[in-house]
Amino acid sequence: MALRFGTQLNKSAACCVLITRQMTTRQMTTKQATAAFEDIEQPQMRTSVPGPKTKELQARLGRYQNTDAIHFFVDYNKSRGNYIVDVDGNVMLDVFTQIASLPLGYNHPELASAMTDPKNLSTFINRPALGSYPPLDFVDQLESSLLSVAPPGMSRVQTMGCGTCSIESGQKAVFMAYQRKLRGGRQPTDEEKQSSLMNQLPGSPKVSFLSFKNSFHGRCMGALAMSHAKWFHKLDFPVPDWPIATFPRLRYPLEEFTRENLAEENRCLYEVCDLIEKFKARGEPVVGICVEPVQSEGGDHHASAAFFQGLQDICQKYGAYLMIDEVQTGCGASGRFWAHDHFNLRKSPDVVTFSKKMLSGGFYFTEELVPTEAYRIYNTWLGDNSKLILLEKVIGEIKRDNLVANAAKVGQTLLAGLKEMQQLYPALLTNARGLGTLCAVDVATVESRDKIIHTLRNKGVNIGGCGTSSLRLRPSLIFKEKHASIFLDKLASVLSEMAV
Amino acid sequence: MALRFGTQLNKSAACCVLITRQMTTRQMTTKQATAAFEDIEQPQMRTSVPGPKTKELQARLGRYQNTDAIHFFVDYNKSRGNYIVDVDGNVMLDVFTQIASLPLGYNHPELASAMTDPKNLSTFINRPALGSYPPLDFVDQLESSLLSVAPPGMSRVQTMGCGTCSIESGQKAVFMAYQRKLRGGRQPTDEEKQSSLMNQLPGSPKVSFLSFKNSFHGRCMGALAMSHAKWFHKLDFPVPDWPIATFPRLRYPLEEFTRENLAEENRCLYEVCDLIEKFKARGEPVVGICVEPVQSEGGDHHASAAFFQGLQDICQKYGAYLMIDEVQTGCGASGRFWAHDHFNLRKSPDVVTFSKKMLSGGFYFTEELVPTEAYRIYNTWLGDNSKLILLEKVIGEIKRDNLVANAAKVGQTLLAGLKEMQQLYPALLTNARGLGTLCAVDVATVESRDKIIHTLRNKGVNIGGCGTSSLRLRPSLIFKEKHASIFLDKLASVLSEMAV
Repeated sequence: MALRFGTQLNKSAACCVLITRQMTTRQMTTKQATAAFEDIEQPQMRTSVPGPKTKELQARLGRYQNTDAIHFFVDYNKSRGNYIVDVDGNVMLDVFTQIASLPLGYNHPELASAMTDPKNLSTFINRPALGSYPPLDFVDQLESSLLSVAPPGMSRVQTMGCGTCSIESGQKAVFMAYQRKLRGGRQPTDEEKQSSLMNQLPGSPKVSFLSFKNSFHGRCMGALAMSHAKWFHKLDFPVPDWPIATFPRLRYPLEEFTRENLAEENRCLYEVCDLIEKFKARGEPVVGICVEPVQSEGGDHHASAAFFQGLQDICQKYGAYLMIDEVQTGCGASGRFWAHDHFNLRKSPDVVTFSKKMLSGGFYFTEELVPTEAYRIYNTWLGDNSKLILLEKVIGEIKRDNLVANAAKVGQTLLAGLKEMQQLYPALLTNARGLGTLCAVDVATVESRDKIIHTLRNKGVNIGGCGTSSLRLRPSLIFKEKHASIFLDKLASVLSEMAV
Repeated sequence: MALRFGTQLNKSAACCVLITRQMTTRQMTTKQATAAFEDIEQPQMRTSVPGPKTKELQARLGRYQNTDAIHFFVDYNKSRGNYIVDVDGNVMLDVFTQIASLPLGYNHPELASAMTDPKNLSTFINRPALGSYPPLDFVDQLESSLLSVAPPGMSRVQTMGCGTCSIESGQKAVFMAYQRKLRGGRQPTDEEKQSSLMNQLPGSPKVSFLSFKNSFHGRCMGALAMSHAKWFHKLDFPVPDWPIATFPRLRYPLEEFTRENLAEENRCLYEVCDLIEKFKARGEPVVGICVEPVQSEGGDHHASAAFFQGLQDICQKYGAYLMIDEVQTGCGASGRFWAHDHFNLRKSPDVVTFSKKMLSGGFYFTEELVPTEAYRIYNTWLGDNSKLILLEKVIGEIKRDNLVANAAKVGQTLLAGLKEMQQLYPALLTNARGLGTLCAVDVATVESRDKIIHTLRNKGVNIGGCGTSSLRLRPSLIFKEKHASIFLDKLASVLSEMAV
């Protein structure tokens, strides 16, 4: 088998380090193999991006769907580690990693070995309806993957297919718990059941979920109702009129503006309370608050531990539930496994959603939120347990190589670098900020931001944007100091050209 | 490699036909291999179901989530073809196949070969953000899988992760097309964009989607608003108050009640028009109608081609769009590749959604529904293109073995058998009906229905329920006459015991 993989990949890949690993796993120590795996040394550009082959493929795909969001087509066979290789042969350092969704970069040997392990074959080809016909090893899979990294105080978990479904299922767990509390132990009446089928009161109650300006939680209607980042997510779509509070706009660096930021956060917490009172008076009580630990898509806005503690206190006061959306921030990138681990909450949140780097969607929840009837949180697949096999490998690598600590450390390097740049180019860059590798910086204008992204890409660094005019870094967990150096060098080069 | 698979599976599987195929692919003709693949001869029961090992695993899983929807835990290594093997060693003929989601049964050798083909490795371990960084071979994958079976007149397709996301993205394509038409070519205003971010008019318009009583389209809020099958999908969840029309309740056999059924369908079509007028007057115009070709979860309710033609005419009249939800009915089970192929529509529907047997979620759509801006129909993953590799194999098998024609033929056998049973037990069974293998029959009471399901399972047949008290068959596409015979024999045996 090893030979076959080797032969195949060798044909198409310029650098065949992965193959070497495949062929010689038994002869090499794990450390050696990992060292070999990270072999691409630096970006190498052959064409402008998008190059001719991307343009050709984009035109072909354009016959079937809108392709305006495509950056470039990728040769995933050749991509490796922190480097993404496009179809025109351009090798780019990837600090965006499929919108923050690759925990171990490209073609990690541990994932390859899981995929080619014969004992996993039937899991990959027989996708089960996990809620009714779970596999023999499902509990083991949950325990060795999701449950092994559960947030403190949370021992319940439900798999889901994607981030959006995780958010909406978390909402539903909250809606149910809230109504159960109202019913005070009695069974739902026939009237409640029948009216729910027709989208009517009392079975379909008038309740609401509070979210924040600039938040992003997903694209289906319940998640979209809580998302307020960009118009093209929202325009033309009917969504419920739920309360939307202001998320703090802190001044950075945080340590210099403690007093101002406290005032801003208090202002936002008061607004949350006001909205809860207002919607209660309207007869649409707020049953939950949904919040990202770091607002990502909406502009990488941070808030302090005190702010999140305040939200939990408000939930307690009003009998609402706290849902923390860790779809983008979870799995180590913040320098803790879960970003909300930074917040010293007095108890766990009620729901913590995940997806992206976790490879499977889903959510952790508390005992109070366990549904009391069958088929309440359910769909055909409930995710894909083959992703748990890969996640187990990811978690193994994270633990073995202390990748969470690595994210904390390399994040400091990135943030220090961004701060240095904004000192050099204060007219162009402001508000450098970060938590672990969740780093960002604001650019003076949208045009300048887009020009930086475009020029960086053509110098061999693939980076993302967010908010109105920010740069967003979302590297993998195997992003090391040397990669940070390359990124910062390239950024410095772009900025010096732009400042001329 | 072949040997390793063989050794591994051999340890755990009683019948090692799959392994034989793996080991000797090159020496056997495809026909021989397939014949060997279908080797389990009949059900074989060792314990009652749920058996002791299922109960043990269910108790363990119960620490982490509600497990009331679990029927039994499955040994997917041992399951094969049309036979599902539970963890207690019970071998059951599966006519429900993971809620209609297995096109080729368990452990099909073609899927195993796709999974173990080295050239597919990088696709399985590097899940791309398909909307921004699609793989080199994505267009090829689309063309050789989804586009090769596109409904007539539909040449656009968008992948999605699951059925629910497919429905909601289809809704959004419709919402956008409707508002674009209203804007008449002008760009959206800043007011529209900004108000949409706050869930307010005019950017978040008051528009509605019409659905039918007893329909089921999914579990996120937009799909759930159109689902009206069972209270436990709906209770406690706020959803928009959209129009809900009556779906025809036909009398079976259809050929005996032509006149009555025509009257019933006309009544329902008039109701659709009334609701559209009513919601237009309310200022919440109906922009689309969503309908299943055969209502499945809600009770296997059929309607005639004329009814669906009438819906299309109504859409035309009112400037609404027709969305046909083929998540459960697509991929050949109806005796045509798409169930709506039976309806002789004068033009294609505007949206056709799919998932389940198609392995990938997604939807086909018309040119008019192509978004005109980037990131409008979008999310991080947009499905999983590794599923397209498997789907290509599925479509290859369907074409090679004429599995759609097989579904038509074996469906007739099943329906004839159900009709025979209801003649024998008219107090117990009524309304036998079917389209291809999408067969069902009503049982006199919920208790009797549940007893039949339970007893059948303990005699070695795994079947589903639907609606209030119906039995639902959803076998795989490799379900043949001999399997139909076994199913009908077992059912006859259960019914004769119950009639005593």
